Amino acid sequence: MSKKIRLGILGGGGDSLIGVLHRVASQINDNYEIVGAVFNPDFEANVAFAKEIDVPTNRIYKDFDTLVEEELKLPKTERIQVCSVLTPNFLHFPMAKKLLENGFHVICEKPMTTTYEEAKILQATLEKAKTVFAVTHTYTGYPMVRQMREMIKAGAIGKIHKVDAQYYQGWINSIIHDKAKRSTVWRLDPKKAGISSCMGDIGVHAFNMIEYTTGLTIKSILADFNYLYEDNQMDVDGTVLIRMDKHVKGVIRSSQVATGEENGLSIAIYGEKGGLRWEQENPNYLYVLSDDKPLQVYKPGHAYNSKLSLNGTKLPPGHPEGIFDSMANIYLGVARAIRGEKYNDGEFPTMMDGVRGLDFIESTVESNKKGNVWINLK
Amino acid sequence: MSKKIRLGILGGGGDSLIGVLHRVASQINDNYEIVGAVFNPDFEANVAFAKEIDVPTNRIYKDFDTLVEEELKLPKTERIQVCSVLTPNFLHFPMAKKLLENGFHVICEKPMTTTYEEAKILQATLEKAKTVFAVTHTYTGYPMVRQMREMIKAGAIGKIHKVDAQYYQGWINSIIHDKAKRSTVWRLDPKKAGISSCMGDIGVHAFNMIEYTTGLTIKSILADFNYLYEDNQMDVDGTVLIRMDKHVKGVIRSSQVATGEENGLSIAIYGEKGGLRWEQENPNYLYVLSDDKPLQVYKPGHAYNSKLSLNGTKLPPGHPEGIFDSMANIYLGVARAIRGEKYNDGEFPTMMDGVRGLDFIESTVESNKKGNVWINLK
Amino acid sequence: MSKKIRLGILGGGGDSLIGVLHRVASQINDNYEIVGAVFNPDFEANVAFAKEIDVPTNRIYKDFDTLVEEELKLPKTERIQVCSVLTPNFLHFPMAKKLLENGFHVICEKPMTTTYEEAKILQATLEKAKTVFAVTHTYTGYPMVRQMREMIKAGAIGKIHKVDAQYYQGWINSIIHDKAKRSTVWRLDPKKAGISSCMGDIGVHAFNMIEYTTGLTIKSILADFNYLYEDNQMDVDGTVLIRMDKHVKGVIRSSQVATGEENGLSIAIYGEKGGLRWEQENPNYLYVLSDDKPLQVYKPGHAYNSKLSLNGTKLPPGHPEGIFDSMANIYLGVARAIRGEKYNDGEFPTMMDGVRGLDFIESTVESNKKGNVWINLK
Amino acid sequence: MSKKIRLGILGGGGDSLIGVLHRVASQINDNYEIVGAVFNPDFEANVAFAKEIDVPTNRIYKDFDTLVEEELKLPKTERIQVCSVLTPNFLHFPMAKKLLENGFHVICEKPMTTTYEEAKILQATLEKAKTVFAVTHTYTGYPMVRQMREMIKAGAIGKIHKVDAQYYQGWINSIIHDKAKRSTVWRLDPKKAGISSCMGDIGVHAFNMIEYTTGLTIKSILADFNYLYEDNQMDVDGTVLIRMDKHVKGVIRSSQVATGEENGLSIAIYGEKGGLRWEQENPNYLYVLSDDKPLQVYKPGHAYNSKLSLNGTKLPPGHPEGIFDSMANIYLGVARAIRGEKYNDGEFPTMMDGVRGLDFIESTVESNKKGNVWINLK
Repeated sequence: MSKKIRLGILGGGGDSLIGVLHRVASQINDNYEIVGAVFNPDFEANVAFAKEIDVPTNRIYKDFDTLVEEELKLPKTERIQVCSVLTPNFLHFPMAKKLLENGFHVICEKPMTTTYEEAKILQATLEKAKTVFAVTHTYTGYPMVRQMREMIKAGAIGKIHKVDAQYYQGWINSIIHDKAKRSTVWRLDPKKAGISSCMGDIGVHAFNMIEYTTGLTIKSILADFNYLYEDNQMDVDGTVLIRMDKHVKGVIRSSQVATGEENGLSIAIYGEKGGLRWEQENPNYLYVLSDDKPLQVYKPGHAYNSKLSLNGTKLPPGHPEGIFDSMANIYLGVARAIRGEKYNDGEFPTMMDGVRGLDFIESTVESNKKGNVWINLK
Repeated sequence: MSKKIRLGILGGGGDSLIGVLHRVASQINDNYEIVGAVFNPDFEANVAFAKEIDVPTNRIYKDFDTLVEEELKLPKTERIQVCSVLTPNFLHFPMAKKLLENGFHVICEKPMTTTYEEAKILQATLEKAKTVFAVTHTYTGYPMVRQMREMIKAGAIGKIHKVDAQYYQGWINSIIHDKAKRSTVWRLDPKKAGISSCMGDIGVHAFNMIEYTTGLTIKSILADFNYLYEDNQMDVDGTVLIRMDKHVKGVIRSSQVATGEENGLSIAIYGEKGGLRWEQENPNYLYVLSDDKPLQVYKPGHAYNSKLSLNGTKLPPGHPEGIFDSMANIYLGVARAIRGEKYNDGEFPTMMDGVRGLDFIESTVESNKKGNVWINLK
Repeated sequence: MSKKIRLGILGGGGDSLIGVLHRVASQINDNYEIVGAVFNPDFEANVAFAKEIDVPTNRIYKDFDTLVEEELKLPKTERIQVCSVLTPNFLHFPMAKKLLENGFHVICEKPMTTTYEEAKILQATLEKAKTVFAVTHTYTGYPMVRQMREMIKAGAIGKIHKVDAQYYQGWINSIIHDKAKRSTVWRLDPKKAGISSCMGDIGVHAFNMIEYTTGLTIKSILADFNYLYEDNQMDVDGTVLIRMDKHVKGVIRSSQVATGEENGLSIAIYGEKGGLRWEQENPNYLYVLSDDKPLQVYKPGHAYNSKLSLNGTKLPPGHPEGIFDSMANIYLGVARAIRGEKYNDGEFPTMMDGVRGLDFIESTVESNKKGNVWINLK
Repeated sequence: MSKKIRLGILGGGGDSLIGVLHRVASQINDNYEIVGAVFNPDFEANVAFAKEIDVPTNRIYKDFDTLVEEELKLPKTERIQVCSVLTPNFLHFPMAKKLLENGFHVICEKPMTTTYEEAKILQATLEKAKTVFAVTHTYTGYPMVRQMREMIKAGAIGKIHKVDAQYYQGWINSIIHDKAKRSTVWRLDPKKAGISSCMGDIGVHAFNMIEYTTGLTIKSILADFNYLYEDNQMDVDGTVLIRMDKHVKGVIRSSQVATGEENGLSIAIYGEKGGLRWEQENPNYLYVLSDDKPLQVYKPGHAYNSKLSLNGTKLPPGHPEGIFDSMANIYLGVARAIRGEKYNDGEFPTMMDGVRGLDFIESTVESNKKGNVWINLK
């Protein structure tokens, strides 16, 4: 009998990029087997896609409720153990909640829910369910991000006093500057896409990255959004001042109109003894700065890295691994947790990351609406 | 008779780095000859230094007032034409004012004055004097900064909608974290150093760089400073939200505690059609971004550059010129202006740059003091 | 019934890095299913490893001959279709030959054989077998390497006149400088490792990369090896002058003692109209050089890339893919060929690449031995 | 009386780039004053240029012989002390020789002479003259090249076993591919330009850089040139295998048809304990490689640098200095030598560098002509 974890997939069919990312990541470390799915709300498309990617069709269900119902009829040794929720944002909450209530582990795409209130409910649900829950802040799976976290924890840069995280993209330009497009696309319709575009989609990654690497908590924020046009209701750009405690400050810069930027997530952390910088588009370099020593560049796979970092590298130095490998590392952490193996804090983002993310998004919207005032996170 | 412009120097003696920078820059294009100076308030040191750098000692004066008095006795064809003011900050205003009132041209170090009020007075003085006045925002002399300005002016990136400028250094760490040092050093004593450390010393360069390259005016700002310690009275770090008009927004990030950063001035400008990025520490690369075309890297000395950029390059592509050459370009522009030659807008920073800089510094201090509120620039 | 291609694996068990690389690559595009294997010559270890990575054990065989024998008994619809040969170098030839003779497709690790003579025999075998054969010059799977090839083919840089390829590593330092180690390690024992270390292991990749990207044939070579010690029989460093035709020249530089270099494969091609540069450690950047236009940087996933390049990218620009994805692209090409689908020249390295590689290796050894003279490739 | 060294200039008038480079470099450290010159063989142009750059015209001479004759009539305290020889290559030897014979110090552009024989004669002349003689291998003035030399000397990378130097430019493309141009331009006429274009003009810099940084002597070379066209008599590209002693090998790669390369001089040195890499186009970064420690990046002006390196930096870290500053460092070293001050080996390139350069150039031509055979340097 296979020892692979039985994985169910919700959404992610057809050309879905998030679907590719999760499928490849789940396969990379030989831990998961896709045994059931609802790839697509259209049943025919659903089955066709299963055939295309060679998933057995007998457990391809017509909808989510049927999946839960039918899987529960199966013996525990055959039943889906964990579901990846890759559906449109507004479905994350009801699906994740029902999965938890029925004893499934959950890997949930981001944003975990559409409101902070939902997030708190989901958190309470998880507390009862006692299953494994991960939210896919993919970038925390990169070996050099993990190295950054471990170095900070070990005191390599001393007490932190300054943080600066950026997430710049330019792709929304082709929509926002076209009046017809910007008034019709679902991405900029608050009813369909939620209360925030730029902060909800990408700013929240920068927020999470700061808390993940520093181990500190962001206490309050002041946000300024840019909508670019009077007739646009969704933020496409925003800058957020942050306070971690009264003498630790920083900034989160986020944009979907940073023309020509592709997926420009980067982070810089400065402490009394040193600084650390990392960029997602060149993920295999961690820059270690000092006021009086030469700049150092840490790279994956070397013995000088921490255990948490080395766990995320499969090949020797000089063989670049990328974003699939980063997500695979998160799937690896979840697999260990599901199997009840010992794993380290930091191997995958948890419910708490999801809850704090929603708190951040709602707080930035509130700060901006009230005229750029400070809002305390909960 | 020499056709070189007769240059006087105030301050900049001994090991002064700013002294080296101005002297070398003034010599690079064969335009200036140092004929008089008060390098040092101590007359012996003053004369000794003149000998060391081989400036004739007959016009080395005991103090500034004597310099003005004695030079005015000389015939116009021998008299100092332009003075470089490199003295401590609080002396810039009285010296520059008196020089202008007596018909001298002035090259003034930054900050031009210690208050906006003084700046306005100086501006009025210049209007009467009708001489040439430059404030040394050195970085605007780099060929690729000039290329950035000209490309924006020519519409290369379309209507601007987002700007982001950074000036990160780490050098104040060795002072600020030491209680004894931070309470005694003049740099952190508002009585000696003025109302702002980080914003006044470096943030203002980022501000100037934005206005220089975009040709736009920053209308209002909201600033958040970090003092790091309760007993420290001067900002050592700050983030400033900016609005150029209501749909053009941006951020200025400035720090003297960005540990390990050396002289990290950089700027990114995003418009509807493209983006531009430049970094002071690698000044010979201008990155031209597009959402759908390959990234381009412009380099100095190529015929594809604008005239303003090419004027600032002396050697063929691949021969790196640096910060001395940047300052030399500003001295070159001033020389043209003094000689009454035709020169382009943008060849050197003017009184207006100085005035706006002071407005910016005072406004950020006010915004931070009032609890991070929006302040309109004047 | 699964539409996945039935894959057999020879070698690559345990901690084998090449094993990880092939397994992950085979899974990335949902094309292959591992159905049989001899991971390890020790049967117990073989089975244990199969369990560990969750491959069914019923088709884990005690040795290669048994695998062939037993698989041939299975109906064609169940039988292994293609075998990946990941065993020690000297086994590549006999295994690949027998596989071809029995109608299997083959994916063969590099070097394809240990001698040119064997390579020619294998080539003849393939001509009879008419199956699909690939040799894993992994780096040709990178999207920007493919873009390089297509741009050259389309005339982007005009007639080529100069090539320069480098493959620098430093890992053998820890062995070569230790007399005891260098006399015992199999890597430096010609009986076990073949006639060449540096040229055979990595120089040949540089050779292949030149022929792959330029579409030109290297006609003759002159090689100079470095053994570092009198008692060392294997080249650990070498430089090779190359001639493609009498006016097209270049150089291949290869080293295993380039201290601190990790996996430094890079290539530069210069033509009458432009130049192209690519580096394996930053594989997602292709530098397009011109004497009179700005440097351009091509990146994967953009519509401006060629079809062959875009086929090798799964995510949008800015999401870095790495070496697993590069190898996956080669597996994808092989899958298309096995299925009889239309595929492009350049989707995977063929028998001809393998044959030429052996010709190159043997010729460099001969050139060096004869005192650095020109040798014509066959 | 001025303490500046009295400098004479031969050549370098008008738009001459080499003229700008030397003039600026001579002024940067306040050490030299131009007191006499023959900028141009045309006397009117000569005087006009002197006026333009504001050099007194009374010691602007009609030709070189007159300069020597007239200067010798002046008292020693007024006479030109050192002459910079910036004339066409074939004039370097006779001018330098006569200058030395008459007791002048000499700063000579490269190539020092047109033949090795002349170089030996000049060397003998200098031995009698006992004046200061420098040949301007400009790139050895960069602070990080000097740091490289000092680190190697101090054993930072252990015993060297591999060197690789490159000098790639693309500028000759616009000439070489045009039949009319290539047959008329003086650069490709051996009668006017000497026996070698690529090796003589730039390859020799790479050669010098290797000997300068490693402190080792290149013993023998094997060269392969490319002329690109049958009707072209001058090398425009060449690769040179080098041996320093029998187990230390390397390569020099040089090209004037590396399309799109600007001034791509770079060097990599690998030793038992580490590696060092430097690139002229980004001269302020020295990469320090290790097999098992993080990559380090050394930058100018930091206290961790050697004294020789720090002597070559005028501003704090982060303020980029460039090629004028590099040449200025060489002028600084010469000034110390002229004044009889103590200076370090390595502060400026000497007669020996010039002699060895000519030996290298002639040997590569001989090697190539004889069919790419090994030639021992003298």
